[in-house]
Amino acid sequence: MRIKALKQVESRIELEFPSSSDAEIVLRAIEPEISGSPSERTSTEIESEGNILKISITAQDTTSLRASLNSYLRWVMLSNEILELKNLKN
Amino acid sequence: MRIKALKQVESRIELEFPSSSDAEIVLRAIEPEISGSPSERTSTEIESEGNILKISITAQDTTSLRASLNSYLRWVMLSNEILELKNLKN
Repeated sequence: MRIKALKQVESRIELEFPSSSDAEIVLRAIEPEISGSPSERTSTEIESEGNILKISITAQDTTSLRASLNSYLRWVMLSNEILELKNLKN
Repeated sequence: MRIKALKQVESRIELEFPSSSDAEIVLRAIEPEISGSPSERTSTEIESEGNILKISITAQDTTSLRASLNSYLRWVMLSNEILELKNLKN
């Protein structure tokens, strides 16, 4: 029987935005994605504190952690692109 | 001129192993990889505390954070595989 070496994996990501409103915009954009894609192998919390967006992920293994990290970071990248273009217009 | 929306990105990963010796083995295996692949856009610290391996990454953007995260998690996965097979043999 194969003994599981890695017991648990946790990751906390902090994303610093220029303003709290930017952080909140990204939070509101991403939150439905996170709650809409429940997974048995990971649990995720997302919150904003001032201009900092905090994403905490707990996973059973690195494979499921990587999958979640990649999805969330892709959503952050997309939101960030839109914010940058919006800032360009103002 | 495009105004950078995302100022800084930080990620802390904590990997819980069954024993401190397992965590140290993975630390010693991964450390040369991390110090051997310097990047201007990310800075990384790795340490073990008891049976917990801690990886802290600071990056300028989510793209470079994702690249680093993926590499380190791949190395952890590989080390973890070897530990599990080694545990199988003992």
